[in-house]
Amino acid sequence: MAKVKQDKLRARLPRGFVDRSAADIRATDAMVARIRQVYERYGFDPVETPAFEYTDCLGKFLPDTDRPNAGVFSVQDDDEQWMSLRYDLTAPLARHVAENINEIQLPYRTYRAGWVFRNEKPGPGRFRQFMQFDADTVGAAGVQADAEMCMMMADTMEALGIARGDYVIRVNNRKVLDGVMEAIGLGGDENAERRLTVLRAIDKLDKFGPEGVALLLGEGRKDESGDFTKGAGLNSDAIEKVITLLDVGNISEEVIKEHPAAQARRAQGGMAGSEYEAHRADLVFGGYSRLLYSSSTGLSGQAELRTIWDLVKAAGYGDGRIRIDPSVVRGLEYYTGPVYEAELLFDVTNEKGEVVQFGSVGGGGRYDGLIKRFTGRDVPATGFSIGVSRLMTALKNLGKLGDEDVLAPVLVTVMDGDTGALGRYQQMTQTLRAAGIRAEMYQGNWKKFGNQLKYADRRGCPLAIIQGSDERAAGEIQIKDLIEGKRLSGEITDNVTWRESRPAQVTAREADLVETVRAMLAAQAEDRRAAKGN
Amino acid sequence: MAKVKQDKLRARLPRGFVDRSAADIRATDAMVARIRQVYERYGFDPVETPAFEYTDCLGKFLPDTDRPNAGVFSVQDDDEQWMSLRYDLTAPLARHVAENINEIQLPYRTYRAGWVFRNEKPGPGRFRQFMQFDADTVGAAGVQADAEMCMMMADTMEALGIARGDYVIRVNNRKVLDGVMEAIGLGGDENAERRLTVLRAIDKLDKFGPEGVALLLGEGRKDESGDFTKGAGLNSDAIEKVITLLDVGNISEEVIKEHPAAQARRAQGGMAGSEYEAHRADLVFGGYSRLLYSSSTGLSGQAELRTIWDLVKAAGYGDGRIRIDPSVVRGLEYYTGPVYEAELLFDVTNEKGEVVQFGSVGGGGRYDGLIKRFTGRDVPATGFSIGVSRLMTALKNLGKLGDEDVLAPVLVTVMDGDTGALGRYQQMTQTLRAAGIRAEMYQGNWKKFGNQLKYADRRGCPLAIIQGSDERAAGEIQIKDLIEGKRLSGEITDNVTWRESRPAQVTAREADLVETVRAMLAAQAEDRRAAKGN
Repeated sequence: MAKVKQDKLRARLPRGFVDRSAADIRATDAMVARIRQVYERYGFDPVETPAFEYTDCLGKFLPDTDRPNAGVFSVQDDDEQWMSLRYDLTAPLARHVAENINEIQLPYRTYRAGWVFRNEKPGPGRFRQFMQFDADTVGAAGVQADAEMCMMMADTMEALGIARGDYVIRVNNRKVLDGVMEAIGLGGDENAERRLTVLRAIDKLDKFGPEGVALLLGEGRKDESGDFTKGAGLNSDAIEKVITLLDVGNISEEVIKEHPAAQARRAQGGMAGSEYEAHRADLVFGGYSRLLYSSSTGLSGQAELRTIWDLVKAAGYGDGRIRIDPSVVRGLEYYTGPVYEAELLFDVTNEKGEVVQFGSVGGGGRYDGLIKRFTGRDVPATGFSIGVSRLMTALKNLGKLGDEDVLAPVLVTVMDGDTGALGRYQQMTQTLRAAGIRAEMYQGNWKKFGNQLKYADRRGCPLAIIQGSDERAAGEIQIKDLIEGKRLSGEITDNVTWRESRPAQVTAREADLVETVRAMLAAQAEDRRAAKGN
Repeated sequence: MAKVKQDKLRARLPRGFVDRSAADIRATDAMVARIRQVYERYGFDPVETPAFEYTDCLGKFLPDTDRPNAGVFSVQDDDEQWMSLRYDLTAPLARHVAENINEIQLPYRTYRAGWVFRNEKPGPGRFRQFMQFDADTVGAAGVQADAEMCMMMADTMEALGIARGDYVIRVNNRKVLDGVMEAIGLGGDENAERRLTVLRAIDKLDKFGPEGVALLLGEGRKDESGDFTKGAGLNSDAIEKVITLLDVGNISEEVIKEHPAAQARRAQGGMAGSEYEAHRADLVFGGYSRLLYSSSTGLSGQAELRTIWDLVKAAGYGDGRIRIDPSVVRGLEYYTGPVYEAELLFDVTNEKGEVVQFGSVGGGGRYDGLIKRFTGRDVPATGFSIGVSRLMTALKNLGKLGDEDVLAPVLVTVMDGDTGALGRYQQMTQTLRAAGIRAEMYQGNWKKFGNQLKYADRRGCPLAIIQGSDERAAGEIQIKDLIEGKRLSGEITDNVTWRESRPAQVTAREADLVETVRAMLAAQAEDRRAAKGN
């Protein structure tokens, strides 16, 4: 056992924070690049804000946090003003737009990826720093902007290789929810707090099912650990109305097929996907009408949803990619109109061993009041946020995280450590690099040659360049093929032929270094392709 | 004047923080991608750490900060432990390596770009959040690793388009400086603090010249604003020794040409760049020898520098790209051996209107003790950091910030706002996007058509698609060329011919939308190329 000095520091990360590996960084970069491409094609331009904002500018919009200033990391500046690390990318965008309102050309389409921070109790898979990727349109009052956001989310899913049918963009409207609130006597400013509690209860539908939501709408709910969450305190009639709303979108395939329009169409030769979806939407809108007839707010929300649906249909996205769904809520307080969510439909096994749908990877909605806090005048806006890590987990599950095929470097080994020899190894390394070949000279203790080959092996180096004093004198090098007989042999059927065709080690003239390395790397690449083909 | 509500929030950023524009983000991304390519070719892999570290893990290595905990942003976690936002990327890397020392394969070559935070008084061009791009080799004790870092910095400069001769990588060794310290009686642990003061005085050579440094080495220096900086309190003999060291690298071209070796070589037909540099290095090493003969530390530092120089020469970088220079210090306390700096040599006008060399854009050195703080055992390491914003300013000055050529979107205008018409505009927009053409439907108030064209103009849209009810009935569209006669006319010599060859507006069948837009964008691209050629 190694002796430990008393005053030795312990290397550890604060709870809820993680380091990112090379594979993780490369996969994230590739994913973000593909998302960016979709947003750019939609006419969006990047804009970014710093990590800090004044605390008052951020506002208290964090979900699941009732205590003031909880949930965020805050420090006091030397002029006594409080600053906080951003907890999302929407509040800082609102500040940015308000601050530059005279220079910004509206409507303003922008996107940004960045780290956000939550000062919460960390848990498994819950981090205190994570990346979001947002897109927003500011200064667009019409719901055609919301419809466009939904289509952009759908296109994003497909650009990442998620198959049509494996995802759905679900759309609802806060005004519809507000209509139901009015109907159960929760209208008016004085009930804002309780409405929020109801919204957050509904938002738990995925997690706890209708029974769990009903408990949260009533007295409250005790979870498995015995923790009790206080409910919204609604009476049973009110709870039933809310649960009925959530059920409006819960339409089985059979019901849709029994719809008269569907039956008529089927008589003429079956029902296409988009027709199926159109019937589905009709049934949902019918359900809304029955619930909302007494609320003008609710009905105007329904009308907006119908416009969104018509636009989506016209652009060809009404085939099941985008759906009207009354159970979508979004936990944030500041939404004022349409809300939308991207949900992945394939099954995964959760930490409890249950098979569940993967669920939400991002969402957003219209927040017409957020910029007004600063400007005093209406600046309508709509946008959404993708949880980058969560989406990456989904892509891993689907096997869609492109193996980035980053080749490990060619290793130039060190046989002699005197400056003259080192200079020559270094020169070979630079020559390879200058030719665009990833290469490195061994930088550890060169005296144990076995360690150098062990290093190359663990690192996955494709080739090792070797030059002892005899070879140096003769102007020659040895090139050892480190992949040969190791990684690919399993996949090659005729192993003998293959071994013979790819010698494990070749001697070459030093002057032919680049040429020979290129040929050997190309042969390995060819083998990888062949092995993949098998 | 607009009425301002009493309780309206003021939208403003905390001092020292800035928003980033689209142009800035795109330029940074392009620059970082090019740097990354060089590092990857050198065999480096990415690894990233989060924004927060435990304060004790970061250590107090921030230059120019004598107060404990000053200079960083710190918060106390709910378990009472203090966490700080990272102020550089080196201290977190040391923590990462120490924490994972048993899994990491040494030598370990890594790179990372990321935001760092300094809780300092912000000033013009001094930000409290900025981006660094670091590369480090951990577990490599030999100075060949330092030599490689210098070559990688040189290759990075050239990959960014900075011409050979417009930059130099300057190398020195802390051990040489320590040797001089010993010679002036500042050896030993008890003088660590004063040595640091001397180092930081030397580090100001660029800023204040030898006279200013001499003041900082002695009693102190009063700046123009009257602020007094206390000096290191050296006597005049000691000051002279330090100034002599700084002057060792200050060798004029004439002196080099008078060197006997140079004269002999010139007699045989002139002196090549690398020979010139070799003579220069000889003179520097001679100067070191005269100063360091009594210090074994100093002499071993000189020997290391000579090895670096020989390796650099062997790899062809001894042609002025990399130079031994005794005035390089680096302000950080933790360096233990070679230190190096990338300096840009072209002139710029500073904020006082003086013409000065652009100066340092990054640097680093060997920090063999930083990981040992955690592990208790030696883990040698060397690395450098590039100041991303500063380098970008330099590239702007050089005109090397690639005009990223991001084309603004094609604008689909809105003539009628009913859902049917909107659906059709939306469909056209999606059709363009699906064909890979950047496009957007106008999302503002459609009723003032003039505003739509004004928007397109300000946004730089290349084309506008127009469809009124008549055209809709006929299945036609109008495509307006917004670049024609506006941006390029100045550069085109035969304006009449050109105007005739590119009509301002064409009528096309809606079915030919993609094809026609493609052709018109191609014609504009051709005109841009032609205009550039003129």
